[in-house]
Formats: sequence, structure tokens, C-alpha cells
Amino acid sequence: MSGYMVVFLAGVGMSRIGKRAEAGWELVAEAFNELLEMGIPPEIIDALYVGVQSETYEHQIMYGTLVAERLGLLPKEAYRVEACAAAGALALHTAYLAVKSGHVDAALAVGVEKMTARSTEEVTDALMAASDYIDQMSGVTIPAHYAMIARRYMYQYGATEEDLCMVAVKNHEHAAANPKAHFQRKITLEECLKSRPIATPLKLYDAAPISDGAALALVVSEKIAKKLPTPLVEIAASEVATDTLSISQRPDLTYPRAVAEAARRAYEKAGVTPKDIEVAEVHDAFTINEVLIYEAVGFAERGGGYRLIREGATKIGGRIPVNPSGGLKARGHPIGATGLAQVYELYLQLAGWAHGRNTGARVALAVNEGGVNSAAVVHMMRI
Amino acid sequence: MSGYMVVFLAGVGMSRIGKRAEAGWELVAEAFNELLEMGIPPEIIDALYVGVQSETYEHQIMYGTLVAERLGLLPKEAYRVEACAAAGALALHTAYLAVKSGHVDAALAVGVEKMTARSTEEVTDALMAASDYIDQMSGVTIPAHYAMIARRYMYQYGATEEDLCMVAVKNHEHAAANPKAHFQRKITLEECLKSRPIATPLKLYDAAPISDGAALALVVSEKIAKKLPTPLVEIAASEVATDTLSISQRPDLTYPRAVAEAARRAYEKAGVTPKDIEVAEVHDAFTINEVLIYEAVGFAERGGGYRLIREGATKIGGRIPVNPSGGLKARGHPIGATGLAQVYELYLQLAGWAHGRNTGARVALAVNEGGVNSAAVVHMMRI
Repeated sequence: MSGYMVVFLAGVGMSRIGKRAEAGWELVAEAFNELLEMGIPPEIIDALYVGVQSETYEHQIMYGTLVAERLGLLPKEAYRVEACAAAGALALHTAYLAVKSGHVDAALAVGVEKMTARSTEEVTDALMAASDYIDQMSGVTIPAHYAMIARRYMYQYGATEEDLCMVAVKNHEHAAANPKAHFQRKITLEECLKSRPIATPLKLYDAAPISDGAALALVVSEKIAKKLPTPLVEIAASEVATDTLSISQRPDLTYPRAVAEAARRAYEKAGVTPKDIEVAEVHDAFTINEVLIYEAVGFAERGGGYRLIREGATKIGGRIPVNPSGGLKARGHPIGATGLAQVYELYLQLAGWAHGRNTGARVALAVNEGGVNSAAVVHMMRI
Repeated sequence: MSGYMVVFLAGVGMSRIGKRAEAGWELVAEAFNELLEMGIPPEIIDALYVGVQSETYEHQIMYGTLVAERLGLLPKEAYRVEACAAAGALALHTAYLAVKSGHVDAALAVGVEKMTARSTEEVTDALMAASDYIDQMSGVTIPAHYAMIARRYMYQYGATEEDLCMVAVKNHEHAAANPKAHFQRKITLEECLKSRPIATPLKLYDAAPISDGAALALVVSEKIAKKLPTPLVEIAASEVATDTLSISQRPDLTYPRAVAEAARRAYEKAGVTPKDIEVAEVHDAFTINEVLIYEAVGFAERGGGYRLIREGATKIGGRIPVNPSGGLKARGHPIGATGLAQVYELYLQLAGWAHGRNTGARVALAVNEGGVNSAAVVHMMRI
């Protein structure tokens, strides 16, 4: 990409994730305050992009304008970007495009969701809007989709319910060191295995919680970057790929092609290989998906993902730490915020600021997806 | 912006607008077919962005993936962008950023809405999600917002209900020559004045209809442009600005600051002045808004917009033809499609393809807005 801008992350912010009393925009303000405390002058921000599935949860679709107004950033460019749970990383991708194009020098990527004021039934219905119509009409909920995938994966490769629960155990262990996580406590394998069934073989502890939260990241051009007091993290690649809306149309339920395709492009653009990645945050909406992503991004061969969990390779201290934040499973999963919560963690990791859970990594990968892997966003970052 | 890509429109497509039996994605396919018939090879498309307010109308939020799949464009980059009625132009803006950055060489901007399957009450509620909470709780609908603005404008500047109705008469006259318009017929001033009140002083014929439709535009880099058989229209500027979500927080109800700010930036980037514009498509969701936009983009001085209507200056054949397509008022207003329906018309105008309504223009302006002018998108185009 010679001749084009090199694009940097120059700061991040995140609210505490969990069941929160505040409105979505107030959680954004909490995250923004952290960015300001890093010494970022707000007047440099030229544009902002908000990833949020807000229409159902907060009856608000002008979320770009709302956030610009509440953060004091009017009349700056602002709008909403969306692909259900991939919204946060898509906000970052749009900020990346805006800066890389020279359209602006500094853009804020914001992700937010305020979910807990709605009933579980309302949330389930809102998330089903990320499915193809045939699946919606058949009553196949999002957990049911992942359950079918998990069942097939176990049949095909010999993984067990224990293997899946070990993903949850690992991520809870990581979250115990994350003061902003939804669940800051460890769980045992037995707790997970005995938790109530959601959609067999998946149990409550295989599933990410319904959370409130906001996260954001500042993307800047090289020109602006030099003037800022914060660590600079290069965005070496930002790639988006898609797959059939219905999993019934995919040749192999156990292989998330959109994730693999976005990762392939990202490795190529960044000029790195899976072996070069030293830390990753990936989309474990359900434990099975973390295992699938290991394989799709090349951390393990096809059918070998669950062995990484058995070996402890993806724990902090292991060969390739995955979800040091606690992941969607334990850090929490406020839909629109998740992609940027991942980036928040990776910025801290690369800067050496993830107190109590630092990995010392210098090259990082983030995988955010929406609609049961029907849209995937992969970011490659390095310091 | 030396050193960066010049970005072109290399083709467009639009479905017939109106009350349609098809699903939203089928209307997109109809529009896409027109683009293919212009001789565009679909395999050049690297990414697509969809402007749509679909969650309420079609219970679908993965609209990027849906369109990519139905058009045969998997696994390309695809996602949804949104700011209510400004969604279409924001899809174009995102495509512009993607190409200008060098991230892709060809991006498709898609706008679509399928509204008529819902009741008027459901549509009214969905559109209220574009308002601030205080206004939602107070029951101030979108027509009520524009009614307050119209009342204030009439009081402040001496415009009359006749002046506003003359906007509708003009736009219906234009639409009579547009075979894809929702209303292909002329109306009289009397018909408009006697139509039933919606929110006084606005009447049914001051309001854009509830429509179904889709429109799209192909954005390409200079490299790709040279290989295509279609007329090339330069996107000389693509600018987005915001204003307070609630009109109660604005110093002057009659001045849409976000439109003015986006236009100011666009004139500056394109190096043109209001006098250079030879045709415009602007956001006449209600007749009053067309008049306000005349002033905000500099076609008239403050308080002088309604005189352009009285003088016939904005008719085809006048000094500065506005809404030759018929505008939102008569071409129709499928929320997410509108911004790209404007661009569709302007591409035809610049190419000399708007049979029966050609203006011969070579420099064009498009103004699309959402949330009662709380987000505005201005595109400047030239051939």
C-alpha cells in the first residue's frame, strides 16, 4: 500500500462492563473520559463512527449524532455502522478508511450497547434479526445455531463438552484479573458442566452474558500521531469478509469461512503469518466459536482447535494467549461494544498496560463477527 | 488532496419507487440489474455498503451480508451504515472512503427500504427513533417537528402555505417525466392546499410518501475507471456534518446548520461556489425543508429561499433546477434508498441520460439528511 497513509491507534477507552444503570451514551462518556485522561485533546477528533444495535434496545438510530452531541463533538462527521455483534470492529474499520483516505486526520471509533433494560425475550428477538428469514421463521435462535455447530464439531473431530467448558474456565480465569470485566471471578470445570442447558450441548456457562458497556479507540494519521503523548499502535490490516446468512447454506458448519477469508487478507496485507501473532482477542459468543476461530485464523489445523485448549496453549503464559481480557464470555458482550472492547484490551497489551495480565506481546490479532460468522472483521495491530 | 485517489461514480441503478410487492433485497437486485446492463462487470466489486433502516421494517440487521449473498458477491466486504433518512448518502460516503483510501478499487453503495408492509403507526414509531429522547417522550412526531419549523419560518420571513405547496407542485411536475417515480403525475396548487392537515401548517401534499425502493451507485478508483464503458462522474466532495438531536437545542429553527456546514466543507474541497452548481437533488421530506436547504447551501440568502419557488428559479429550465427527479415528495422516499436515489438522478443528469427532464448540467449537488437535519450529507459531483 505504498503511497498511502500508515494508520495508528493512539488511545482507547472503555467503561466497566456489566449490568449498568446508565444509558448507552453515558457509558460512552465514561469510556471517552479514559481517552481524555491519556492526554488526548478532544479537539483533534474530526469524525466518529458508532457501532451499535440500538434500535431495539434504546429506540435510537441517530447514534452518531447522539454521541457527537453528548461528547461535545458537534458538528463533526458522525454516523452509525452495523452488522450486529460485528458493529464495534466495523466502527474501527470505518475510522481506518476515513484516516487512510486522508479524508480526516483523526477519527474516533465507538462501540456501545445498553441491553439489560430489556427482557431476555426481547434480546433474543433483537438478535434473531441477524439471521436469514428462513431461520427466523423456523424459530432457530442464535444459541440454537451455535448448538448445531458445536454438535457437528464434536461429532466430526471428537471434541467433548469438557473441552468447550475449558474455554469458559480459561476466559473466566483471565477476567479475574480484569477490573472492568462483567465477571471478575474464576469458575471450575464442574460449575460449567453442571450449569443449565441453553441449547444442548451448550450450557449457560458456554454462553457470553447479556451486558451493558461501551468502548472506543482513536485512529490517527502519522502527521497527528507524532504530536500525541500516547503509545502508537500501527493498524497493519483491517479486513471484512462475509458468508451466507443462513448456516444451512454453508458446506461445512465447523469452518467459519468469513473469519478465515478476512484473516487471510489481513495476514497478506500486514505481511505476517499466524506464527507471528503473540496475543489475540476473538469472538467467543459461545465457547465453540473460540475453538472454530483458532482453526480459521491458523493457530491450529482443521479439527485441532480443541487441543490448544487441552494443552493450555491459549492461556496467558501459553504459546498464544487468546482473550486475556476474559473474552465475550467473561469480560462481557455488549453487542455493539464488543469489537472495540477487544481492541481496548489489545492496545493495553501492546502498550504493556494490562496490569496483572500482560503478555508482553508486540503483534496482535482481533476477530469480531456478527450473524453467526456471516460477517467477520479482522484487525492486525503491532507496536 | 494531492497524492490521494480521485474517486469516480461509474454507474448507477434504481428500482421503480412506490408500493412494491417485493422484499427489500429483491428491489436491490432490480437496481443492480440496471447497473449490469450498463456494462459493469460484477466481479470488479470489492466491497459494498448498505444504507437501510431495516430492523423495524424487515427485522433484518445483517443487510450487508444479505445483499452480498443475494447479488452473488460473497465473501466480499459488506456492512450496513445508518443515520435514518441519511443512510443512502452515508453508504456512498463510506464507499468513497474505501476507494479513496486505496483499501479497494471498486465499492458499491446501496440504499434500500421496504416500508409499505408496515402500518403508518409502525412507520411513525420507527422514524421517531431518529429523535432525541425528550422529544420521543413528549410525543413529538417527525411531521410535528417540521410543522414547528415551517410555522417559525413563515412567521420570520413572511412565506405562506402557498409557497410551500408550490414546492410540491414543482416536484410533482418534474416526477411526471420520471418513469421510476412513486407519483408520475402533476398536482395543482389547489389540490395541495386542500389536502388534509398532517401537522398544521403542513398538509398531506407537503409530505413525502411512505415508499418502497432501492438505489445504488458504483464508486471506482482512477485505475479501474479507465476500463469501464460508462460515463465517469467525479465525486469532488463527500461531507458529513451533525447538529443537535433535538431541534429545541438549536438557536434558529429555520437554519439547518448541519446542511450548511457539510455544504461549506464540500464547496471548499471541490473548489466551487453555489453559483457553479447547475443541478441539485435535495432532501424535501417536507416542502419546508427544500426551502431551508436552498438557503443553507447558498442558492438564496437567509429568508429568501421561498422567493426562488415564487420565481420558478428551481424548476427544470430555471436558473438552478432542484429535484428534477421529483424529489422525495414525488419520486418517493424509501428511507435508506433516498440518498442514492438522488445520486442516481444526478448521474443521469450529468450523463445526459435523464430523458424528458435533462438539464444539461455538468456540476451537481446532493443534500441528504436524517433526524430532522441532525445529520447531513453533501455530495458534489461533476463530469
